[in-house]
Amino acid sequence: MSRLLTIAAAQMGPVARAETRKQVVERLLAMLHEAADRGAELVVFPELALTTFFPRWDLPDAELLGFFEREMPSAETAPLFDAAERLGVGFHLGYAELTPDGHRYNTAMLVERDGSIVAKYRKVHLPGHEEPEPWRPFQHLERRYFEPGPETFRARRAFGGVVGVAICNDRRWPETYRVLGLQGVELVCIGYNTPIHYAPDPGQDRLAAFHNNLVMASGAYENATWVVGVAKGGLEEGVEGLCDSQIIAPSGEVVARAVTEGDEVVVAQCDLDLCNDYKRTVFDFDRYRRPEMYTAITAQRGIREPAVDDGNGDDEPGALDA
Amino acid sequence: MSRLLTIAAAQMGPVARAETRKQVVERLLAMLHEAADRGAELVVFPELALTTFFPRWDLPDAELLGFFEREMPSAETAPLFDAAERLGVGFHLGYAELTPDGHRYNTAMLVERDGSIVAKYRKVHLPGHEEPEPWRPFQHLERRYFEPGPETFRARRAFGGVVGVAICNDRRWPETYRVLGLQGVELVCIGYNTPIHYAPDPGQDRLAAFHNNLVMASGAYENATWVVGVAKGGLEEGVEGLCDSQIIAPSGEVVARAVTEGDEVVVAQCDLDLCNDYKRTVFDFDRYRRPEMYTAITAQRGIREPAVDDGNGDDEPGALDA
Repeated sequence: MSRLLTIAAAQMGPVARAETRKQVVERLLAMLHEAADRGAELVVFPELALTTFFPRWDLPDAELLGFFEREMPSAETAPLFDAAERLGVGFHLGYAELTPDGHRYNTAMLVERDGSIVAKYRKVHLPGHEEPEPWRPFQHLERRYFEPGPETFRARRAFGGVVGVAICNDRRWPETYRVLGLQGVELVCIGYNTPIHYAPDPGQDRLAAFHNNLVMASGAYENATWVVGVAKGGLEEGVEGLCDSQIIAPSGEVVARAVTEGDEVVVAQCDLDLCNDYKRTVFDFDRYRRPEMYTAITAQRGIREPAVDDGNGDDEPGALDA
Repeated sequence: MSRLLTIAAAQMGPVARAETRKQVVERLLAMLHEAADRGAELVVFPELALTTFFPRWDLPDAELLGFFEREMPSAETAPLFDAAERLGVGFHLGYAELTPDGHRYNTAMLVERDGSIVAKYRKVHLPGHEEPEPWRPFQHLERRYFEPGPETFRARRAFGGVVGVAICNDRRWPETYRVLGLQGVELVCIGYNTPIHYAPDPGQDRLAAFHNNLVMASGAYENATWVVGVAKGGLEEGVEGLCDSQIIAPSGEVVARAVTEGDEVVVAQCDLDLCNDYKRTVFDFDRYRRPEMYTAITAQRGIREPAVDDGNGDDEPGALDA
């Protein structure tokens, strides 16, 4: 049996600070058309795709709010929805969302092939810092500019399968994929903007691409789902962003990968039924999981280290019971 | 700062059905001595290291029980404890445990450099099947022969750090590493016996080594811990077992790897303080985790799929709220 969905990962090169929404949407439309020509039914665009990655600056409110969308579709983004409906191609798009009551989220939406929004997700795991830190070569003020998403990861029936959305830093947390996996997810769309330089520990820089693949491939395999990870990368306003967009099978294997640092469409024909090879065997959750053993995962946030042994042998009662 | 611990992964080639405990312990002692000569302070032996991997057969009770240990140390294993104390080298060893009151577990113990048992862990995630399935070329009757471990993963202070133990199939479940990670684990010892042929879906066979590394490397990185994965592998009683033992840094990088299908010692000098590079930055759990979003992980065991949309638009209330 097979349930084929042709997916495009539409990687974006840099977006300049001065670039307008109109200019960006034209780039997105060009990729949407190319993807449609190549048979894609779903085009996955990156996180915060409509503007430069503005959390790198400490911005005055007036300029900051200019990077947010007040409605969706908007005048500037309507052409994307129109093209989607006309071409019969759905899309995933990340953007900065300002709600009517003034909340700010790092959001991604899923638009079906008829141009209707079928899912909206607000980033759960916000990386970076709350206050400007002048010692950094550039800021990462997501925790200042966005509220954490108030709802957990939610899979939906769309594109003939069960589809979930996560954003950037979410992909480093195995809980992200597991919460979706427990809903039977078959495809997770993940947009990202990942500066290669990580100021708190530059020793991690050389591993940016390795870690990017490692977390998405393991999330795919361990939850028997396709994962599409799509970058906005390249040299944007002086900051080098990771590219390396990829489409990953439920086996954890990369089946398509971007090889440039610019706008680039990669396409793969994805059989959603491949998920069943794993969901029904090694990762048959109902048969093999043991949630009663996992209570710490939801009962605590940070680390609780084991007690220091005082040498009297009784500080860990029962530890060695036969 | 650095906190160095020299660790040996002591991979085992096949153990024949007829091989005696005495013969096996002699092989283990040879590797313990070699590891000590090469500076190791901890030697990690595989899962069920003292016998052949007997769950591959449907066995009568009398023969089955012959593969279990009734006490530890026993007459046959005492030389390992004696050598550990004499050499000042600790070890990790997996074995089939029969308790005085008749419980059977797939167990691993951690023995400190003074020869004392400091931790005993009983396998939480039992793979395979409960009843003999004659259609298989060989059985995998762990779920028949062992009870699931009654306690969750527990990290201990040992070897100058915080050490946890998991066994074989546990390594495919991200919850394993996370429960230990939430205890600040710095080293996870994992022994395994992994047949390369997976009868329920032979399409996975070609990926056995890839998956083995993928789950351990992601578990290491996502929890900022060293992971030592050690196989009993090679061609054992007609069944090809995965080898590819490896020592993995908190970065997810393999720093030492076995390259044979036999008894082989690989050694790495592991700096436990490297864990802090990640625990204090990108994986600062207390700062970045959001356990209130993970409730499904402990609230349910199997998959609960999203409802099928009935087209009236109200089956997912609030889904698209602004």
